[in-house]
Amino acid sequence: MKINSQGKITLAHGSGGSATRDLIAELFSARFSNPILDRLEDSAVLARPEGGIALTTDSYVITPLVFPGGDIGKLAVCGTVNDLWMMGAKPLYLTAGFIIEEGLDFSTLEYVAESMAREAARQGVAIVTGDTKVVDKGSGSGGLYICTSGLGSRVFEGVSVEKLLGREHLRDGDAVLVSGALGNHHACILSQRLGIDNTIASDCAGLGSMVRALLQEGIRVKLMRDITRGGLATVLNEFLREDLCIQLEETAIPVDEDVAALCGLLGLDPLYMANEGKFVCVVECDDTAQALKVLRRDELGRQAAVIGTVEPRSLGEPGVFLRTSLGGMRVVDVLYGEGLPRIC
Amino acid sequence: MKINSQGKITLAHGSGGSATRDLIAELFSARFSNPILDRLEDSAVLARPEGGIALTTDSYVITPLVFPGGDIGKLAVCGTVNDLWMMGAKPLYLTAGFIIEEGLDFSTLEYVAESMAREAARQGVAIVTGDTKVVDKGSGSGGLYICTSGLGSRVFEGVSVEKLLGREHLRDGDAVLVSGALGNHHACILSQRLGIDNTIASDCAGLGSMVRALLQEGIRVKLMRDITRGGLATVLNEFLREDLCIQLEETAIPVDEDVAALCGLLGLDPLYMANEGKFVCVVECDDTAQALKVLRRDELGRQAAVIGTVEPRSLGEPGVFLRTSLGGMRVVDVLYGEGLPRIC
Repeated sequence: MKINSQGKITLAHGSGGSATRDLIAELFSARFSNPILDRLEDSAVLARPEGGIALTTDSYVITPLVFPGGDIGKLAVCGTVNDLWMMGAKPLYLTAGFIIEEGLDFSTLEYVAESMAREAARQGVAIVTGDTKVVDKGSGSGGLYICTSGLGSRVFEGVSVEKLLGREHLRDGDAVLVSGALGNHHACILSQRLGIDNTIASDCAGLGSMVRALLQEGIRVKLMRDITRGGLATVLNEFLREDLCIQLEETAIPVDEDVAALCGLLGLDPLYMANEGKFVCVVECDDTAQALKVLRRDELGRQAAVIGTVEPRSLGEPGVFLRTSLGGMRVVDVLYGEGLPRIC
Repeated sequence: MKINSQGKITLAHGSGGSATRDLIAELFSARFSNPILDRLEDSAVLARPEGGIALTTDSYVITPLVFPGGDIGKLAVCGTVNDLWMMGAKPLYLTAGFIIEEGLDFSTLEYVAESMAREAARQGVAIVTGDTKVVDKGSGSGGLYICTSGLGSRVFEGVSVEKLLGREHLRDGDAVLVSGALGNHHACILSQRLGIDNTIASDCAGLGSMVRALLQEGIRVKLMRDITRGGLATVLNEFLREDLCIQLEETAIPVDEDVAALCGLLGLDPLYMANEGKFVCVVECDDTAQALKVLRRDELGRQAAVIGTVEPRSLGEPGVFLRTSLGGMRVVDVLYGEGLPRIC
């Protein structure tokens, strides 16, 4: 590979010339290799999917690029497949765009690409096309952005989720479940940024096995959302219809001890913290116990919990309430900003 | 819209809170509105396309953000639909990811979004899902990156291009055509960067009408590529099979006078310059005249020309030759970098 003597990415690697070709061939194609990608065409030609499809996109701008529990590459793959699973679509194909800052260590890029390839294999998706740009030094935060898109099929393994999910199915009495403890990713990144010494790792993970299990068991899932930027509070407020509200039980919301400790220290609220391997779902009341069982059966769902219920709402009332551990009620609103240090 | 008093983007707009929601709703959704996007789900749920599909992705990092003939938004839409058309796929859906530098003028973002919406409508594609991130000041080159992906169908309007295109169809005697003059986009951006006063505008445009016409007229198109980063020389070298070479006629390659003048001034070679509204195609020898007629019928193809032919190649020989205006032959290789000032 014609990298410069310091093992750094240079502007030439983004020129479209042979340096770009070599970078793509030896760093990306070598790791992501599959029959579709290997054609290196302007766009990937794919077979017609089985049923209706879902399409999603995300940009990843996180620093540090590598952190306990993951890295920007693993994050990009997991975040994208999770957005598809949340719409009941099985991820089939990913695209990957890399915006690289001149001067980025080649070894870092190799590490991230390696991690992406490993995670894509784990999640059962093929990276079928991509793009590489190199920007001037100082123009890229942390040296690397990754933009991924994902295409999934809503008919898979006998399961068809066509028209299954959506706000319109919500109703009074539905149960609200989370798949695990809240705040780990946010707490991890923040600790890294602030140099706080602890063992908190990001929860960065693909949610496919839990979602697949819920759908295959025939659980009547009304809505699913991965709990990322903005946290549970924001996600739940986005769920709502004007005629419904959600009542949460603070004592039922799982938060790991070390994360709770950090929150106490910095005055953070786990309800607004980002996760990268957790989702919240609303299921038919009668399916609550079975849904919980299905989630807890999964290694990633051991701490799954029923955290609240959907209830009627009168016009103008807030949409999300929290019954605190002391028995008081407080409104859980959407913040203007994050209300805490930015991590993405 | 809750923007700050100076009308600038702030980190809060990327927080995932209500500022993000407002930004997306009032700036993007309002302009890109369609029934799929308006659901604002984690991913866009789409109908099953008619035939085989094509998927592409690109990241746009150009400065200046607005230039004669276009802007980063128009560029993103055209570049993405062009990549789909080059594989014989009619663009159906786009995704748009925005990485915005804190402090970017809100009015600039409005201008770019407006331009994207207009161009998407012109190209007949819907922007069905997106993502917005805000990065610290100084972390974004020129204040804005746009990452787009596109999904297209390879069966449309009675045309099926399944298995039609590909290297394997190339053969001795095929004709090489370009859809217009070379170097305009590159020359335009360079002039803007260097403060050179001229009237050169980018050729930024969607190539759909020309490609559609070629396919509908039944022209036997072997390969098509839009001539972007790396220029014609790079594209042609990527075309090649080991058993074939391409011989170009320098005098046949269209270059506008003002672009040629700038190239003379700066010592640039149009063969390596980026375009954003031009493509090269290789067609069956017998179809050459008809293909040229079809291209020139289109407003964007008035300067279309036959610039070379595909010929046999012995092992180890270079892949692209140019017969110069003086009758000499020179090898047209792929450069390591751009060999000229970077524009993207």
